[in-house]
Amino acid sequence: MNSTNKQRYFPWKDRPDNCGEAIWRDSANPIIGRNPIPAALRIYNSAVVPYKDGYVAVLRADYRDGMPHLHLGKSRDGINWQIEHGQIVFESRQGMPGVGAFAYDPRVTRIDDTFYITWCNGYHGPTIGVAYTKDFETFIQLENAFLPFNRNGVLFPKKINGNFAMLSRPSDNGHTPFGDVFYSESPDMCYWGRHRHVLGTTKLWWESTKVGAGAVPIETPEGWLLIYHGVMNTCRGFVYSMGAALLDLEQPWKVLARGNKALMGPETDYEISGHVPNVLFPCAAVHEESSGRIAVYYGAADTTTCLAYTTIKHLTDFIKANS
Amino acid sequence: MNSTNKQRYFPWKDRPDNCGEAIWRDSANPIIGRNPIPAALRIYNSAVVPYKDGYVAVLRADYRDGMPHLHLGKSRDGINWQIEHGQIVFESRQGMPGVGAFAYDPRVTRIDDTFYITWCNGYHGPTIGVAYTKDFETFIQLENAFLPFNRNGVLFPKKINGNFAMLSRPSDNGHTPFGDVFYSESPDMCYWGRHRHVLGTTKLWWESTKVGAGAVPIETPEGWLLIYHGVMNTCRGFVYSMGAALLDLEQPWKVLARGNKALMGPETDYEISGHVPNVLFPCAAVHEESSGRIAVYYGAADTTTCLAYTTIKHLTDFIKANS
Amino acid sequence: MNSTNKQRYFPWKDRPDNCGEAIWRDSANPIIGRNPIPAALRIYNSAVVPYKDGYVAVLRADYRDGMPHLHLGKSRDGINWQIEHGQIVFESRQGMPGVGAFAYDPRVTRIDDTFYITWCNGYHGPTIGVAYTKDFETFIQLENAFLPFNRNGVLFPKKINGNFAMLSRPSDNGHTPFGDVFYSESPDMCYWGRHRHVLGTTKLWWESTKVGAGAVPIETPEGWLLIYHGVMNTCRGFVYSMGAALLDLEQPWKVLARGNKALMGPETDYEISGHVPNVLFPCAAVHEESSGRIAVYYGAADTTTCLAYTTIKHLTDFIKANS
Amino acid sequence: MNSTNKQRYFPWKDRPDNCGEAIWRDSANPIIGRNPIPAALRIYNSAVVPYKDGYVAVLRADYRDGMPHLHLGKSRDGINWQIEHGQIVFESRQGMPGVGAFAYDPRVTRIDDTFYITWCNGYHGPTIGVAYTKDFETFIQLENAFLPFNRNGVLFPKKINGNFAMLSRPSDNGHTPFGDVFYSESPDMCYWGRHRHVLGTTKLWWESTKVGAGAVPIETPEGWLLIYHGVMNTCRGFVYSMGAALLDLEQPWKVLARGNKALMGPETDYEISGHVPNVLFPCAAVHEESSGRIAVYYGAADTTTCLAYTTIKHLTDFIKANS
Amino acid sequence: MNSTNKQRYFPWKDRPDNCGEAIWRDSANPIIGRNPIPAALRIYNSAVVPYKDGYVAVLRADYRDGMPHLHLGKSRDGINWQIEHGQIVFESRQGMPGVGAFAYDPRVTRIDDTFYITWCNGYHGPTIGVAYTKDFETFIQLENAFLPFNRNGVLFPKKINGNFAMLSRPSDNGHTPFGDVFYSESPDMCYWGRHRHVLGTTKLWWESTKVGAGAVPIETPEGWLLIYHGVMNTCRGFVYSMGAALLDLEQPWKVLARGNKALMGPETDYEISGHVPNVLFPCAAVHEESSGRIAVYYGAADTTTCLAYTTIKHLTDFIKANS
Amino acid sequence: MNSTNKQRYFPWKDRPDNCGEAIWRDSANPIIGRNPIPAALRIYNSAVVPYKDGYVAVLRADYRDGMPHLHLGKSRDGINWQIEHGQIVFESRQGMPGVGAFAYDPRVTRIDDTFYITWCNGYHGPTIGVAYTKDFETFIQLENAFLPFNRNGVLFPKKINGNFAMLSRPSDNGHTPFGDVFYSESPDMCYWGRHRHVLGTTKLWWESTKVGAGAVPIETPEGWLLIYHGVMNTCRGFVYSMGAALLDLEQPWKVLARGNKALMGPETDYEISGHVPNVLFPCAAVHEESSGRIAVYYGAADTTTCLAYTTIKHLTDFIKANS
Repeated sequence: MNSTNKQRYFPWKDRPDNCGEAIWRDSANPIIGRNPIPAALRIYNSAVVPYKDGYVAVLRADYRDGMPHLHLGKSRDGINWQIEHGQIVFESRQGMPGVGAFAYDPRVTRIDDTFYITWCNGYHGPTIGVAYTKDFETFIQLENAFLPFNRNGVLFPKKINGNFAMLSRPSDNGHTPFGDVFYSESPDMCYWGRHRHVLGTTKLWWESTKVGAGAVPIETPEGWLLIYHGVMNTCRGFVYSMGAALLDLEQPWKVLARGNKALMGPETDYEISGHVPNVLFPCAAVHEESSGRIAVYYGAADTTTCLAYTTIKHLTDFIKANS
Repeated sequence: MNSTNKQRYFPWKDRPDNCGEAIWRDSANPIIGRNPIPAALRIYNSAVVPYKDGYVAVLRADYRDGMPHLHLGKSRDGINWQIEHGQIVFESRQGMPGVGAFAYDPRVTRIDDTFYITWCNGYHGPTIGVAYTKDFETFIQLENAFLPFNRNGVLFPKKINGNFAMLSRPSDNGHTPFGDVFYSESPDMCYWGRHRHVLGTTKLWWESTKVGAGAVPIETPEGWLLIYHGVMNTCRGFVYSMGAALLDLEQPWKVLARGNKALMGPETDYEISGHVPNVLFPCAAVHEESSGRIAVYYGAADTTTCLAYTTIKHLTDFIKANS
Repeated sequence: MNSTNKQRYFPWKDRPDNCGEAIWRDSANPIIGRNPIPAALRIYNSAVVPYKDGYVAVLRADYRDGMPHLHLGKSRDGINWQIEHGQIVFESRQGMPGVGAFAYDPRVTRIDDTFYITWCNGYHGPTIGVAYTKDFETFIQLENAFLPFNRNGVLFPKKINGNFAMLSRPSDNGHTPFGDVFYSESPDMCYWGRHRHVLGTTKLWWESTKVGAGAVPIETPEGWLLIYHGVMNTCRGFVYSMGAALLDLEQPWKVLARGNKALMGPETDYEISGHVPNVLFPCAAVHEESSGRIAVYYGAADTTTCLAYTTIKHLTDFIKANS
Repeated sequence: MNSTNKQRYFPWKDRPDNCGEAIWRDSANPIIGRNPIPAALRIYNSAVVPYKDGYVAVLRADYRDGMPHLHLGKSRDGINWQIEHGQIVFESRQGMPGVGAFAYDPRVTRIDDTFYITWCNGYHGPTIGVAYTKDFETFIQLENAFLPFNRNGVLFPKKINGNFAMLSRPSDNGHTPFGDVFYSESPDMCYWGRHRHVLGTTKLWWESTKVGAGAVPIETPEGWLLIYHGVMNTCRGFVYSMGAALLDLEQPWKVLARGNKALMGPETDYEISGHVPNVLFPCAAVHEESSGRIAVYYGAADTTTCLAYTTIKHLTDFIKANS
Repeated sequence: MNSTNKQRYFPWKDRPDNCGEAIWRDSANPIIGRNPIPAALRIYNSAVVPYKDGYVAVLRADYRDGMPHLHLGKSRDGINWQIEHGQIVFESRQGMPGVGAFAYDPRVTRIDDTFYITWCNGYHGPTIGVAYTKDFETFIQLENAFLPFNRNGVLFPKKINGNFAMLSRPSDNGHTPFGDVFYSESPDMCYWGRHRHVLGTTKLWWESTKVGAGAVPIETPEGWLLIYHGVMNTCRGFVYSMGAALLDLEQPWKVLARGNKALMGPETDYEISGHVPNVLFPCAAVHEESSGRIAVYYGAADTTTCLAYTTIKHLTDFIKANS
Repeated sequence: MNSTNKQRYFPWKDRPDNCGEAIWRDSANPIIGRNPIPAALRIYNSAVVPYKDGYVAVLRADYRDGMPHLHLGKSRDGINWQIEHGQIVFESRQGMPGVGAFAYDPRVTRIDDTFYITWCNGYHGPTIGVAYTKDFETFIQLENAFLPFNRNGVLFPKKINGNFAMLSRPSDNGHTPFGDVFYSESPDMCYWGRHRHVLGTTKLWWESTKVGAGAVPIETPEGWLLIYHGVMNTCRGFVYSMGAALLDLEQPWKVLARGNKALMGPETDYEISGHVPNVLFPCAAVHEESSGRIAVYYGAADTTTCLAYTTIKHLTDFIKANS
């Protein structure tokens, strides 16, 4: 039977017999197709977390005017989603920068009983917006974590050295042609420092243009398991693939092992055609502790939301075999 | 029954029941597919006008050498087309610039009993070629309207303030990364002046890179109804969508209302794949006065010719609801 | 004695004995240095015309905020200038585009008893502003001649084929890396047409990037004598030199002869250092009919105003010897 | 029956009745699809030669890390391939540059009883790697033919004027936006000289950005028959099409005739979608002397390997009809 | 007599009689010329603070290998400098990023009895290095304030709202073609947050490309007096000028008034020629509280160190007159 | 006394007492100023060799049309030059590429009794032209050494491993923003091969953009002494400095030692202002074997020809001290 705990179903498909890969797609992809709600043309690059007896998602919804906003989704099984038609409303302190003209590529991280949302927030350029909720009804926005220009802010699911810890990818104000992953700490989610370089691009073409954190890291005995995106530049623009690495548990800016191959690249019709073809962008990895199973939510072609499956063992084996 | 006047059939499909959009595609799209005539690989971004008991089209035909030329098409129903295998031949006065090495993206405007053709004409760079015909047999070329570099010249279907009036989009000599719509007048189709700015790009991503006039404006009690294209820049190049605005009847450079959302964006297979994917480019809007029905001819992916349907009411409601 | 007519002094220095060039600098250059008036840091790229018993200038004055505006200057000898501290005020009809946020590189052309000023006027990008005065006290602004983007609009000093005639250099909205000279006509200084290509860039490096009309053409028996600028691109940016050509008197878009060498390039300290080094930019050529003497006013390094001297014979010999 | 000589089958499909083109696709395309071997995501842009009673291929295999390497393939019919799972191992002299970090777009040329492989080899940038084999078991690498940056080195199948002869396309170190075909000779496959320009880009858009040699030239009575690629730049990147030309038999740098139209452009789903959409890249033309039949192997969308068919007569007729 | 306090001389020249500007140069400029110490070709863009009975400087010294490093200088009069031949040695905690391969454009801010040095520090790109000293003998390096890419970090000379406060200009990893000034706070000089936008570029050309904080702000009754640099882009590269603004004392991210003109631009020989011509870059403003006199230290042409003089009254009058 | 051999004067100035540098300028620089001959505006980046009782130079002469050509110069003392007014005429075999539309940056290398001239020759882009003379009266042009795009071809003054040997810097077709030095061999000056990488750019800013061979290498017991240029990119374009390295005598592609600092950078007025400011470009190093003295001829600012002096000992000490 395909459920977790007593009450929560875990989204899962077994690996097809003829598949030798470390990760495999759901044949029912995309799980959220075009025009999912009246306001939005496309929902993708979105975050999912277990909540109560099901799942909650913070979704990137591209409106008909091209602007991305954050919406809430709810699901019992992690596959079929009820998506709210209005944006998430964030409360913020007077005088603080709020949600900008654009809000995209959200991640959600549970730390104890609080769910932190990080996203690319527009404030005189892209930077990392931060908010939290305990009930997915009231959302409190905090200070933007960093100065512009930054994207792909991903929090660790517990404090490191007593501090909150975040990965991010400093950027420029356009379609950034470079990008490394850095680590930063904060005692209070207001002030951030102790910036450390984590992952750079390599000479391997699949990740030679930029790399950015994808899903919230998963704690394993062998280190923090990070699913990230690597970008290659072709004569027709960027290609985004998925990669994986293990970071030190105590000093996560130290890379213990890093898969030198793409875990998965754009290949299916829904990944190679769409609003921005050949983009495969992971934003969440739901993890079932008892079994080690992982459901990776990723955006395909900046158009739809898809699911792929793997396990902690598959990923750590992949990383070690390809380091 | 689906005809107009006594003798002319109007191309039309009713809005599907499950569609809440202001405009909807013909399910038989594309109506002109690849390799439509021996000389041409692709016909798209083309103009259609009612003529006699049917329709005439001035078509952009991309030849096997990559160069675009203008061809004539004829149709009884506006859907099935007989396309001439040879280019349109324009007569022009001695010493005047004629048709250039390339001719593309034509529009046709009827003013009284004369049909004016405007297109992107090659003369030391792209500029606006102008010609007229009364019978679609003899075509007289006039002076190019403007200095290079210009594209998307669209005439109003009647004189404004006693003058011919044209919209155009000043450009550069490449894949112009900027572009606003301007208005100009001419007493004689030879000399042009009184240039006014009409529509600029906005901060809304779908039209943040450039905007250009699409179809010949339709006169309505609420203003000139303009279907235009808006362009967004992604890390894989431009995306062209369709938008709509209402211009002042007397002073068409004054924008009365402008839909801040894309009316329709590239979404179907034939729009998101092709020679230049994700381009949706309207060049004509055939209008049935009695019913308010509009058939929009648009190019898809710089590859095929397609049809979408709307009405004056749908469009004006859309514009007003989204201003 | 060094004067013209009865009362007007002609600015002039004889060619130095050791100089074999077709044009030679005034050793007193620059004649207008830095910070010439309180409002302006630099005056350069400016127009001069004989008026009454002396000279009048329309000057490009760069303000401390970097914005260029037009000022009036008066001089008895064409060398020492009284410069007005306030901008020229143009009257224009209600609803017409006026002087933009920037106004630069003016030329002044006398046609009969009217002085027409053309300049690069800001109207949603650079275009050609036009105005006239009969007394240099009242200035009436007309319609911008063209759509953006255009620069270096230069009127012929008499009508051609019954029309006003203008040279211009279509541009883009930045530091345009291309540029040819075109010819256009207008019956009324409002509507412009009959656009013809005149001068393109060549493979000769000194004018391989762009060319633009400089001074108002001088009518000679051998054709219109045009002093123009040619631009070369180096690894440190553009270098502007001065060239010369002869255009057909009746059909000025036909080039009768064109000097294939630079007439004069940036060489002196005040030409190779300054706000924009290595720019030598002619905007006026005052001509003494009786003697054939010509005083060329040019901007040096976008910083100062300078004078060089030549004669019709020197120039036409130069052109013919180097065609 | 569809075989050549006694023992070798020739890959072939007759031209469909409704097809009037000079070249036609195999309806079973692609013949090598995605993920053909465990190590590689994509095999394309590859070379095929008859060998013994079947065919041998030197294949471009893109690994999961994005890096391309050369693999060997074997086939009885030229359509179904057994592909080796490991890279080709080249022996080279001590101190000589070997196979670089990347190796792609191979061609194989038989000269007498030796098979020469040329490919884009990484040595401080892309340059032309050269190797030979007599048995496809032992491969001896020679000196790189040229200094970087170069791509698309294609050997002639016999010596010209007593020398080896190679076409190549000098490049830069990125997605080169220019490119002409040059000819070079070598007495010994070590030192190269007598460089001559062969084919440049033209003003025809399909080949206006760059051109490069495709398949090994085929000797015909009318000249060397060269299938090449022509590249056009769109607002969504490059489009690669296939063209053809005839070169002088004795002085192959002299172009006898050149088809001014694309022989075939990207059109099918597998050509217009994929890793790099709209790339159609011929690397081999297997030729049956007795019949004049030609099987062209080409890469589609940098993703798959495809086959198209033509004959010497079809190609020479095409070239002559379109010169 | 020209000294401050009992013992400290204040560098000063009275405004020349013929000068009407708000700021004036020292006629003895540059005060530090080329090749000032054996290791360095150029010293410029440097910080000066009063210390004991004289002045101390933290200097940007460009070595012969092109790399910039920080050196210490000492002076009795602020004009004549003894410059140490070796770099400043910073002590830093194990595992913390230290001084990078490059260190440039330092500022020094005294807060109570501690001198904080901020500079552009190389750590996987330019970011803001921070260190302090109490005696200019021992220097303790702290955490880099921000993630890359950042430049021009300038501390306020006292805590704001109980926190340290810094201005900075987020950048990219090259010759950044954009740039606004932001404000950030830190409770401990380790973690930074509460990021606020302060100054953006304007449409005024002198500061239309980027703006960055220059000298440590001076507290005045009318607000924090900020001298900053504004950058214009010409066809020969950037031009850096000096501007001034008043920021709110309590909420310094609020701009009370901003001079819309350049205070001073590159004009003298030593400013318009050199390693990077036309750069005028203020990094320090020594202020004599009793008199309101200010000595501004600025780099000229990325080559030499210069002095200009003004007063609080001149600057505030300038700002108010030009807001 | 300041002469070499019996009859030849060696151009030389002793090092000034106050100079601690490894190389020092001639205070009489530039030795060839602007407008040196009627046809040319500028002579620079030129080659000098001892010949008979004096010196011969092959000079880059920029004509008034911007095009560079090669001229011959003769001098008794290496300082005062008689420059021929006409270009050098090269004889070449029928059908071979001759001198292109441009010819620049020559070097001259004596091998035995033959003088080889290499230069940047225009042949469908810049490449390396080669010619020889025995008497500086008859010049025989050989094949271009390489395919375009290449610049800075410099021959070794004797055969290496029995072959001619050349350094060059592969380029692109514009103001190349990258560039390494490679080594190639030829048995016959017709065919070239055995290409090896020699010198790359480094992270040191002075040579971080490109490096290219300068003067003909000088054989010393410690290796081939190479004076080269290193280029840095600033926000105002490239800066060219001079560097030095020692290459292995037998295998010159092996770098024995390389000075990591600029030997000399643009600093004087004639180096930092001119046609292309901040370019210091060495093309010849005349060497007096008996004394070890070296006279380096370099172009300054693409405008004039200058001299600097050093010795083998100074250079080798410099290299070793800074490796």
